[in-house]
Amino acid sequence: MPLELLPTCEQSQAFTRAHRAAGATVALVPTMGALHEGHLGLVRDGRRRCDLVVVSIFVNPTQFGPGEDFERYPRALEQDLEKLAAEGVAAVFHPAPEEMYPPGHSTFVEPPAVAARWEGERRPGHFRGVCTVCLKLFHAVSADVAIFGAKDYQQAAVIRAMVRDVNLPMEVAVSPTVRESDGLAMSSRNAYLSADERRRAPAIYRGLAALAEAVQGGERDVAALEGRLAEALAAGVDRIDYAVVVDAGTLEPITTIARPALALVAAHVGGVRLIDNLPLPVDSKR
Amino acid sequence: MPLELLPTCEQSQAFTRAHRAAGATVALVPTMGALHEGHLGLVRDGRRRCDLVVVSIFVNPTQFGPGEDFERYPRALEQDLEKLAAEGVAAVFHPAPEEMYPPGHSTFVEPPAVAARWEGERRPGHFRGVCTVCLKLFHAVSADVAIFGAKDYQQAAVIRAMVRDVNLPMEVAVSPTVRESDGLAMSSRNAYLSADERRRAPAIYRGLAALAEAVQGGERDVAALEGRLAEALAAGVDRIDYAVVVDAGTLEPITTIARPALALVAAHVGGVRLIDNLPLPVDSKR
Repeated sequence: MPLELLPTCEQSQAFTRAHRAAGATVALVPTMGALHEGHLGLVRDGRRRCDLVVVSIFVNPTQFGPGEDFERYPRALEQDLEKLAAEGVAAVFHPAPEEMYPPGHSTFVEPPAVAARWEGERRPGHFRGVCTVCLKLFHAVSADVAIFGAKDYQQAAVIRAMVRDVNLPMEVAVSPTVRESDGLAMSSRNAYLSADERRRAPAIYRGLAALAEAVQGGERDVAALEGRLAEALAAGVDRIDYAVVVDAGTLEPITTIARPALALVAAHVGGVRLIDNLPLPVDSKR
Repeated sequence: MPLELLPTCEQSQAFTRAHRAAGATVALVPTMGALHEGHLGLVRDGRRRCDLVVVSIFVNPTQFGPGEDFERYPRALEQDLEKLAAEGVAAVFHPAPEEMYPPGHSTFVEPPAVAARWEGERRPGHFRGVCTVCLKLFHAVSADVAIFGAKDYQQAAVIRAMVRDVNLPMEVAVSPTVRESDGLAMSSRNAYLSADERRRAPAIYRGLAALAEAVQGGERDVAALEGRLAEALAAGVDRIDYAVVVDAGTLEPITTIARPALALVAAHVGGVRLIDNLPLPVDSKR
């Protein structure tokens, strides 16, 4: 089956509804394009879970703040379509901005509580834009499951809470973060890094991995862990937005690790803002 | 087919999806119960439009403001079900409050621009609650069309804009207002009126009807029309919230009637707040 390009919501609805009516299951992988191995990991996950994968490619203006990188965000449709065809994707929903936000569009989603901290605090309006566009995508592409990457952990938690809160009958699945060989999480924004910045950026993953080791080694005190993380990050990043250990479910701050926890980082390397995270498993060794 | 009572979103989704998969079309009539002839008019409209009608009955707490009548809002489930069975309704979605708003629910809909004035101004948060619950209902009941009453004109306009903005593949239909023989628009809140108040309440419709006549007679000046309306209302109501002539599409104020317009009223009769509206047809006679 060749890759179908669906430019309108109506075409996308018709395509996905027809396939679902015929008994096929559909996975949606929402992306902003500039696809890398991280995205392809989501696509492969989708193929394992469902009969068909639909990828959406839309650089969503409403989730970028003033002064953020909406204009220069990498766009590479031709190469994206080639990669997706090679992965056996059934269709790509690629709407024009006017298709998603026609004149008069004025309804937005007020995101769930889990959106309040971290990215929500640093990027006012970001999750409002993310939730709004995702709800629209979920209506444009009728899917059994939507697949998000664990790299954007808070985003996945926000979307999962939104889908539950609005009673949308669709599963939200989270696929593991895909990393470069030196640990740097794959991200379209890695393309912005200079050679020197690219060399320094893996400090983020090294800091996170050291933290997971410390927890495995028995450390439970969050202040101590956060101190260690900040120190490890300082080896490579220029500025830390946040580097915290939080409850893995609510993303609320904690003082001791007693339940599943998560280390969350946002940091600047040169002019590039990177985010990453790692679960902190609490196992037998305490 | 006997009336099915569906208490959970999951049951409602299963019911409506199975019927739609089998080729039936489904109309949803969202209500807060305490059903009267106005609601039954919506149900009959639904039966004309679709193979099956599903009615939702849910007194939605999030659309009532502090000090409004959530607690004393009339509830009459037994009689409602009898009336709906007699109308050939296929199913009633009647969720418990915890089913719609479980602990942790925190996602809301920020309503479209048409929600800003009139009811939106007088009842802060009202349309946020209405949009939120309607989006949830539209996901819980998979319908081809949702039917709203013209009596709540702004509400229908808000829901129509929301459905368009979020790309929900469902039609929003508006059914004509059903009136008592003296013109009073049917409303569950009419039950609150004392005998004296009930006698005075039709002044609202009489004022609206006089306005439509004045426009038919050639009057185009909105200030003059609004003056006339206020005067006519004074004969029966105790306090006017608003009594305005607006653009029928945007609900924005206008100064002259050049395009389809609408007279919108909210007024208090005793302790009861009533709303009504009437299109002001611009015909040949100008």
